[in-house]
Amino acid sequence: MRRFLDLNDFTRAEVLDLLALARRLEHKPEPRALAGRILGLLFFNPSLRTLASFQVGMKRMGGDSIVIQPGQGTWQLETRSGVAMTQTAAEHVREAIPVLASYCDALGIRAFADGRDLASDLAETQFAAMAEVCEKPLVNLESAMNHPCQALADWKTLDELNVPEHGKFVLSWAYHPRALPLAVPAAVVHMAAMRGMHVTVLRPEGFELPAPLMARAHAAAAGSGGSVRETSERAEALQGAHVIYAKEWGSTRHYGQADRDALLRAQLTSWCVRDDWFAGAAQACSLMHCLPVRRNVAVSDEVLDGPRSVVTRQAYNRLPAQMAVLHRMMCTGTGL
Amino acid sequence: MRRFLDLNDFTRAEVLDLLALARRLEHKPEPRALAGRILGLLFFNPSLRTLASFQVGMKRMGGDSIVIQPGQGTWQLETRSGVAMTQTAAEHVREAIPVLASYCDALGIRAFADGRDLASDLAETQFAAMAEVCEKPLVNLESAMNHPCQALADWKTLDELNVPEHGKFVLSWAYHPRALPLAVPAAVVHMAAMRGMHVTVLRPEGFELPAPLMARAHAAAAGSGGSVRETSERAEALQGAHVIYAKEWGSTRHYGQADRDALLRAQLTSWCVRDDWFAGAAQACSLMHCLPVRRNVAVSDEVLDGPRSVVTRQAYNRLPAQMAVLHRMMCTGTGL
Amino acid sequence: MRRFLDLNDFTRAEVLDLLALARRLEHKPEPRALAGRILGLLFFNPSLRTLASFQVGMKRMGGDSIVIQPGQGTWQLETRSGVAMTQTAAEHVREAIPVLASYCDALGIRAFADGRDLASDLAETQFAAMAEVCEKPLVNLESAMNHPCQALADWKTLDELNVPEHGKFVLSWAYHPRALPLAVPAAVVHMAAMRGMHVTVLRPEGFELPAPLMARAHAAAAGSGGSVRETSERAEALQGAHVIYAKEWGSTRHYGQADRDALLRAQLTSWCVRDDWFAGAAQACSLMHCLPVRRNVAVSDEVLDGPRSVVTRQAYNRLPAQMAVLHRMMCTGTGL
Repeated sequence: MRRFLDLNDFTRAEVLDLLALARRLEHKPEPRALAGRILGLLFFNPSLRTLASFQVGMKRMGGDSIVIQPGQGTWQLETRSGVAMTQTAAEHVREAIPVLASYCDALGIRAFADGRDLASDLAETQFAAMAEVCEKPLVNLESAMNHPCQALADWKTLDELNVPEHGKFVLSWAYHPRALPLAVPAAVVHMAAMRGMHVTVLRPEGFELPAPLMARAHAAAAGSGGSVRETSERAEALQGAHVIYAKEWGSTRHYGQADRDALLRAQLTSWCVRDDWFAGAAQACSLMHCLPVRRNVAVSDEVLDGPRSVVTRQAYNRLPAQMAVLHRMMCTGTGL
Repeated sequence: MRRFLDLNDFTRAEVLDLLALARRLEHKPEPRALAGRILGLLFFNPSLRTLASFQVGMKRMGGDSIVIQPGQGTWQLETRSGVAMTQTAAEHVREAIPVLASYCDALGIRAFADGRDLASDLAETQFAAMAEVCEKPLVNLESAMNHPCQALADWKTLDELNVPEHGKFVLSWAYHPRALPLAVPAAVVHMAAMRGMHVTVLRPEGFELPAPLMARAHAAAAGSGGSVRETSERAEALQGAHVIYAKEWGSTRHYGQADRDALLRAQLTSWCVRDDWFAGAAQACSLMHCLPVRRNVAVSDEVLDGPRSVVTRQAYNRLPAQMAVLHRMMCTGTGL
Repeated sequence: MRRFLDLNDFTRAEVLDLLALARRLEHKPEPRALAGRILGLLFFNPSLRTLASFQVGMKRMGGDSIVIQPGQGTWQLETRSGVAMTQTAAEHVREAIPVLASYCDALGIRAFADGRDLASDLAETQFAAMAEVCEKPLVNLESAMNHPCQALADWKTLDELNVPEHGKFVLSWAYHPRALPLAVPAAVVHMAAMRGMHVTVLRPEGFELPAPLMARAHAAAAGSGGSVRETSERAEALQGAHVIYAKEWGSTRHYGQADRDALLRAQLTSWCVRDDWFAGAAQACSLMHCLPVRRNVAVSDEVLDGPRSVVTRQAYNRLPAQMAVLHRMMCTGTGL
């Protein structure tokens, strides 16, 4: 495997195979599998789980990593093509990426959405500019519209919870003071559809997922016996749910317009997941969230501290899921 | 050993045992003792010695570590319970700590005093909120009112200097432009008392150590044949001292009141340790300081560059002292 | 080898020997050569290549490193002697350096020019203050007027390109919105002269290299059969060039005077290396640059994306060149 950029680049069987490898590495560690291998981690945005779990994952298999954070001890990097670099960025990714790749055995890159132009973000303009000049294996640590590591870990969590393959999966919008990127909702809707689930996207008007993202999810559902739909009717959406996956994201109607987004979301503070959201859900319904989560803003203390919350399990599963990806990318079997 | 949060949690014999292990690891390295072990280091505040020595300590024993610094490439973390997280902090320690703990074999946490409410800081409100949700072994890298790693290293330094067990130990307040936390004075007074020393806390009026901290030190002295007292009379305090331990801290009379603290300390710039402070001290009297120290503000060049200063020796001893702690926590003897 | 601070501290034969070791390590890795060794990396300024390649270099030989960045999770450090530290810096390098050295097997330090007083920067006042108190092996990661790791890597690149030993090497000033340090031009002119090349420094009036730097380069050329001269005539300078090495630097006529430097450089935006610069050059003339480079400001896209550019090769060569330095410093041959 040379690249792990999008779950959609893999067949369902290939994903199941990765998940099997994740479980194997969890239960039968391979402390020398990546001996001598070095992963370069390039973070254009903050991170807790990704930053920690990728470093730990490499070390748990005998490899190691370096972390580069533009703007934090490293220059700002330019991603746009053809510009005269007269502003803050002192270096272009067309130099920085090949250089880092020449030092390392693989790279991981995190670059959030620019958040100004929806079409540009849907096209993954920034990430693609970097992927294009990277000749080493590459992992997407979260791009404008994708977070395949989160999706893979979440699939593992669903399996561990014995959530029915064709169960009901509700991705619910949740309140946040600011517009957040669409990467996780995009990746999670697609993942749940690919797993075979009946997916409902529950969101207020103005926060519809962009059509290309829904189309991807529909296509994935078609191949797995699942389904995908969107609604703003909360009670009906939550009825019989096996999973409520809460996530904050920005208005797509007012994408890139902070003022209009703010006006719209100011009326939506009631979209904080509370115990009563689970009234009509399946008895074993779990609360998922990719973290970080603002307590009592997006999800209440009672839910996060209660038995339905599996958020720390999800976060833990980042580790074995990513170890499977790294193992598949860099393990040559020689153990060096 | 599951936790190293406070020297007061251990008997004198247990501390002596840790110090013996520190000396053993120094003279007879165990480069594979912690092979495969990973320490997560979470710094809410800046660090030089702690940051460097914990990373090096793990590597010297074949283990490794990761560093997480909220606000520097990682989100700000909330520690208060029950609040609606509408401000800067994007994540709560109730999620972040269990997640990091799930990746690592042990955690270390640094979280300085909030500096607003003395009672809250004495209760270690912030640190306790994190320790409560950490299920892995945990090290205190400096909390509101404690710094057990510094205390353990300083005890080792006192032993190496052959400072008499019941010698005279003077903790002297020193000038600093701002109010600094009480963690080191609290830990050091307690450590010296626990070692059996006759401790004098020399400080200007308004900078008395809080009663609970003095009570802890008194109790420790009672068990070791030492004693503890406070004074503002410098000449008398320094008479016959075997050690002068300089440290800057904030006014306790005006705790959390920066303006009133500033007025008080503005008159105290003469509290810079100079050669003449040692006039009446014991001939071999040493100058200790935990670092960082502002030269010619808290301690003069002549003292720091002179033969009495053991400050870099103290800092070096952080390494073997902490290696003993980590070894006791994580070494299973199997060498993996 | 105890110190790698300046290529001028070594004979030509010693440099050639280091380059041979670099090639050997590249083609015949020694993954345990530095097992158990720890390098402390202290960065007072941002870095991408140095930060990444030193960490990777240690790991590729079985060793490891720690990174300390004053002002980024660590206190600001004072370098001046004898001052009362009442300002931002909380710690002096007279404490910090010996402490870090006591934890590690070697240190690397990056400290850019102060940029105010030319004589002080030429005397390497800051770096010397740190080198003086470091008792462990020490590497210069770029100081006020030197960057020996870049110079060594560039020499390796010239060899790989089969640039004639006595070929024509043009160091050309290039435009940048701000005044940048003289470290790379100083190191590169000296390196090229030491290699035996006929060096032309092409720069606008007001950007002459300081006399002491030119004198060093002349002395090196005298020993190697090369030569060094300066000019502001571009066409003549570039005629027959085997290498054009572009670099931005500040006005030496107005050193430390940002306003006057800005006025002078505002007229020099045409100093962006474009394809037509190579019109009269040798057919195989390469474009070198140490990076980071501002595209279409200092060097155009057409050149950087064209076949003449070897900038990523130069950056890659930092890794084997520095591995040779580290190997020479820390490999005892026991493999621990």
